[in-house]
Amino acid sequence: MQFASDNGGPAPRAVLEALAEANTGYAPAYGTDPLSQEVEERLRALFEAPEAAVHLVATGTAANALALSTLCQPYQTVFCSPQAHIHMDECNAPEFYTGGAKLTLVPGDDRMTAEALRAVILGEEGRGVHGPKRGPVSITQVTEYGNVYTLEALRALADVARDHGLPVHLDGARFANACVALGCTPAEMTWKAGVNVAVFGGTKNGLLGVEAVIFFDPAQAEAFAHRRKRGGHLFSKHRYLAAQMAAYLRDDLWRDLAGRANARCAELAAGLDGIAEIRNEAQANMLFAALPRALHRRLMAEGAAYHIWEGTLEGDDPAEMLTARFVCDWALDAAELQRFVDLVRAGA
Amino acid sequence: MQFASDNGGPAPRAVLEALAEANTGYAPAYGTDPLSQEVEERLRALFEAPEAAVHLVATGTAANALALSTLCQPYQTVFCSPQAHIHMDECNAPEFYTGGAKLTLVPGDDRMTAEALRAVILGEEGRGVHGPKRGPVSITQVTEYGNVYTLEALRALADVARDHGLPVHLDGARFANACVALGCTPAEMTWKAGVNVAVFGGTKNGLLGVEAVIFFDPAQAEAFAHRRKRGGHLFSKHRYLAAQMAAYLRDDLWRDLAGRANARCAELAAGLDGIAEIRNEAQANMLFAALPRALHRRLMAEGAAYHIWEGTLEGDDPAEMLTARFVCDWALDAAELQRFVDLVRAGA
Amino acid sequence: MQFASDNGGPAPRAVLEALAEANTGYAPAYGTDPLSQEVEERLRALFEAPEAAVHLVATGTAANALALSTLCQPYQTVFCSPQAHIHMDECNAPEFYTGGAKLTLVPGDDRMTAEALRAVILGEEGRGVHGPKRGPVSITQVTEYGNVYTLEALRALADVARDHGLPVHLDGARFANACVALGCTPAEMTWKAGVNVAVFGGTKNGLLGVEAVIFFDPAQAEAFAHRRKRGGHLFSKHRYLAAQMAAYLRDDLWRDLAGRANARCAELAAGLDGIAEIRNEAQANMLFAALPRALHRRLMAEGAAYHIWEGTLEGDDPAEMLTARFVCDWALDAAELQRFVDLVRAGA
Amino acid sequence: MQFASDNGGPAPRAVLEALAEANTGYAPAYGTDPLSQEVEERLRALFEAPEAAVHLVATGTAANALALSTLCQPYQTVFCSPQAHIHMDECNAPEFYTGGAKLTLVPGDDRMTAEALRAVILGEEGRGVHGPKRGPVSITQVTEYGNVYTLEALRALADVARDHGLPVHLDGARFANACVALGCTPAEMTWKAGVNVAVFGGTKNGLLGVEAVIFFDPAQAEAFAHRRKRGGHLFSKHRYLAAQMAAYLRDDLWRDLAGRANARCAELAAGLDGIAEIRNEAQANMLFAALPRALHRRLMAEGAAYHIWEGTLEGDDPAEMLTARFVCDWALDAAELQRFVDLVRAGA
Repeated sequence: MQFASDNGGPAPRAVLEALAEANTGYAPAYGTDPLSQEVEERLRALFEAPEAAVHLVATGTAANALALSTLCQPYQTVFCSPQAHIHMDECNAPEFYTGGAKLTLVPGDDRMTAEALRAVILGEEGRGVHGPKRGPVSITQVTEYGNVYTLEALRALADVARDHGLPVHLDGARFANACVALGCTPAEMTWKAGVNVAVFGGTKNGLLGVEAVIFFDPAQAEAFAHRRKRGGHLFSKHRYLAAQMAAYLRDDLWRDLAGRANARCAELAAGLDGIAEIRNEAQANMLFAALPRALHRRLMAEGAAYHIWEGTLEGDDPAEMLTARFVCDWALDAAELQRFVDLVRAGA
Repeated sequence: MQFASDNGGPAPRAVLEALAEANTGYAPAYGTDPLSQEVEERLRALFEAPEAAVHLVATGTAANALALSTLCQPYQTVFCSPQAHIHMDECNAPEFYTGGAKLTLVPGDDRMTAEALRAVILGEEGRGVHGPKRGPVSITQVTEYGNVYTLEALRALADVARDHGLPVHLDGARFANACVALGCTPAEMTWKAGVNVAVFGGTKNGLLGVEAVIFFDPAQAEAFAHRRKRGGHLFSKHRYLAAQMAAYLRDDLWRDLAGRANARCAELAAGLDGIAEIRNEAQANMLFAALPRALHRRLMAEGAAYHIWEGTLEGDDPAEMLTARFVCDWALDAAELQRFVDLVRAGA
Repeated sequence: MQFASDNGGPAPRAVLEALAEANTGYAPAYGTDPLSQEVEERLRALFEAPEAAVHLVATGTAANALALSTLCQPYQTVFCSPQAHIHMDECNAPEFYTGGAKLTLVPGDDRMTAEALRAVILGEEGRGVHGPKRGPVSITQVTEYGNVYTLEALRALADVARDHGLPVHLDGARFANACVALGCTPAEMTWKAGVNVAVFGGTKNGLLGVEAVIFFDPAQAEAFAHRRKRGGHLFSKHRYLAAQMAAYLRDDLWRDLAGRANARCAELAAGLDGIAEIRNEAQANMLFAALPRALHRRLMAEGAAYHIWEGTLEGDDPAEMLTARFVCDWALDAAELQRFVDLVRAGA
Repeated sequence: MQFASDNGGPAPRAVLEALAEANTGYAPAYGTDPLSQEVEERLRALFEAPEAAVHLVATGTAANALALSTLCQPYQTVFCSPQAHIHMDECNAPEFYTGGAKLTLVPGDDRMTAEALRAVILGEEGRGVHGPKRGPVSITQVTEYGNVYTLEALRALADVARDHGLPVHLDGARFANACVALGCTPAEMTWKAGVNVAVFGGTKNGLLGVEAVIFFDPAQAEAFAHRRKRGGHLFSKHRYLAAQMAAYLRDDLWRDLAGRANARCAELAAGLDGIAEIRNEAQANMLFAALPRALHRRLMAEGAAYHIWEGTLEGDDPAEMLTARFVCDWALDAAELQRFVDLVRAGA
């Protein structure tokens, strides 16, 4: 009954096997090996972007911060949601990598609206050198609250950015989950919607630690390459990153894994329907739902693992509803999930 | 006949097996899992430093730059050799992570002498706020030219640093090779010699990508932890770093691997003795040796892989002696090495 | 009828005379001259802080950003009001000087309440390395909306900071105006209230460009001195900064100038009372007040200079109330002020 | 007998008068006032560069560091002399403002040769992402050792830079002294020689503290403006910077002042000829010359002020020759200079 995060579970066997396969003989270092080159080519094909520049890094924070540093001058500001991972969960990595840029929060939901984005961008207009210059728009897909932007919504945000000459960054830590939820292609969710740089995350979807950063305009690639090295994120034994990504791409494993995670989440939502207060649409692999404090305590005592998102388990009122985050990863056992639902239904 | 680098070869089977073993079930993220905790404990034991703070990162550049950023204010300077990896090969990572500190090069050999270090430190004295304030001393063991500091030499350098109140950083990308060459303990080569922060490298000695940063004064650990996260170097699935390091420590695998690499290098030096002009003592796993241009060309045509260090293969004079770097890694095949030596002896 | 800013008016004759007096013979550079030393001593006396470290810089942005950089690690966050100058008007200078720290905005009024500050600080608790570590609290006195914290309010904020081990920075660009409004001593408004570092602004109160940064704990002085030089803010001909500050301190000129500015503002508020919608208490030298759009247009046509703060002069409805900011400086002519009031009363 | 520095003397009366003249009435802030605009126009005319972007700052360190930050990416390196002010005397300001770029020192004299520069630039070729990317070339005119590049030498350096696509920065803290020494126009010493960004220094030549940064390609101006503000170097009361520069430009005061300083230096060199060991050509306003230790002591006892450049006054051998730096500023009294020469000739 593991719902704590999608970075707690194991990697699929195919990924470990790919590592073992790659572990033979000698290979050129720093990404010049054939496997790395092949993976880049396959990513370009997947994204229908033959000119794109592709770089692998090992963490999502590195992927985001490096991508933003290439798009954003230190005297600019990045527009993002108040719940964005780059704002909440990266310990100032974007500020560090950009050399001190600011993050300007777009008020509202975890899903920014085009209207709110436009209002904030206009609000920074005419500030001369006193405020920061307006910089990239960063969109998180799936959002930190488990919601998925429609392609229309993405396009509307990107249109606002383009109207003001601002580039668009997509934080795709859960890119696959969104793609599966929308039933769309990677190209549709990125450059066809107006995204300039996308992070194609693998770590939360079954890899040990690999994210691909895709620049649809390759002119920005050289700066990224230097910044990656300068940030300590260029692996000498790059083939081990490439091998993971190769396994991820083979036979659309990435879709398969995300499909499983999303399916588990849908089952969970269905199972809790009518009992819990469901807080989000749960199209992807995260469900936010409220249950009474006393029930949370009993579930955890039974071994369920997840995070209380609002409120605290400590508290007097056993009936108080506390919202929890339930994350389903690809490896989540369907029987375990059913056991959890049964416990909830039985009042644990 | 692979002498190009010690980051081109495969990882030992035990490392891949450890990854597979770690790949079961769910584990807490970000280094809070039991395996990560156990590995930290074992590193403390190995270094005979029960209070030390231990952090794993995936690249040597990250390890060095993060360690230096914790020791060095942005208005300070780091003292190091002109050949230091932090100066030559990290694309300004130390400058980036420290927020703009300078590197002051200690003239002379790749192995700094205590006299030269003291002279440079004294030369920066009395500069008030005009020059940078004096900061850490960074020592590379094994040096980039394949030389090993004796314990006496390390202590002498650390004494100079301590005389001026400066901390000492040890870049140990080839820590194991040095330790084996000196026949000493990790403690003797670090805190017992006056080192404050050491990088215990694994990547060049058989791991996929793991380095341990050891702070012998744990007071600096909290800052390091935040800086690691801010740099994008905290792995969510930290157990896969820990598993590699666990395998590396088990039954002193790290010593075993380094011993093999050093032995190959000694064999190579012996094999080339009297033919090549040997440039360094080659106590560890790197040999610098000069051969005629024409011979280099023939060797490479036969499949030997290594880097010309001084001069260029292009050139008219077939007899000109060109110094090459030969790096032996743990996996280097002894028969292949013998084939190479035979080719050299036969004039290829 | 000049209400646009307190950086548009002239300097008092005494300041120019002090510059001319200082302009004789040769003086040691970089702040080691006798006049600079004397001014530091007098500032320590004024603040009743014989141990304080005092540094002069030429701009308020430099004063704030350098002070914060000394208090704040790059992986920390600064707590401030959403209207704070450091957030709104310094083009990322705090982010730049701290090496990438974040600014966390305390919701509410331009005057932070202790409750709101405590809630935000507590909200950042337990975030481990994912969020920034909690850093300094920055208080602006007078606020950007012309309000003045009482000494009780300052103490309450500083108490919250101290409860969490956080240092307190006071942005005192209008320090003198606040001091006069409160009828307190500089010591009462700073270290006696719990402030660790204060900016004693002179530029907005009649100087050409000088601010004093006062560290009540001199241990932080050395870092500041290096950071000032590194930021390009150490004047070689430092005596010309010192001369301005000397004139400012002589016979409490700073109080006299601020008193005049505050008095003009009070007259303006009284004059507009019953006609304009007054938005703030206007204890210091800034009045925020709303007038109909058509009246604004006529006043500006008559030569009045000030900024519309909310809304825009362009617009159809002549009766719409638009809030403007009226800033009174020390040199503001009382007759001109009366002429402005008369124009308003006459409907311009 | 003041030879310590050209930042110790007074400003000419005309500069103080210009400040007083500018100190009337109200003026728009932040450089939008008419005087600031006029000064920019006059600088463009002086440099025969009608399209140039001109910005004033108050210190030479700010001018250099901001200029370099606009030319140089954080992952690049700046090529300069080992004696360059940006390397030796700015406490890491270039590293800070560029976000962590490196300075690569061109071996040799304080005057870089085109050959040495080309060799160093070529030495950084082919380093991929491991070394920094090659960035701007920074030339100091007059050098820190009092030497002046000929126009031919400047052009040769700029040609090397242009051959590699690198921009050229001119640190002109003593621009006027060089221009007078060469008998050339500002245009000839800058863009006509291939300089992209020049600092036209005023502080060392009689101003209280103003330097103009001239971008001959105005495309870089916007970034500079934001960086100036972000660095805390945009003066709100900008007219007081502009007034100084206006006085400096009026009737070629800058040439007149530099001419005086250079003339004093020539007189000093002539006076010491045959007694001291002259170390440099002393075309501008700095003489490096060696005298016996005992004589230095007597001269200083008589009130002469200057810095010993090599060696130390403390020492046993009274006859040891110690090189000193003698800096002549515009205000240096000719009679005092003669008195000094007489003392030297008399053995003090």
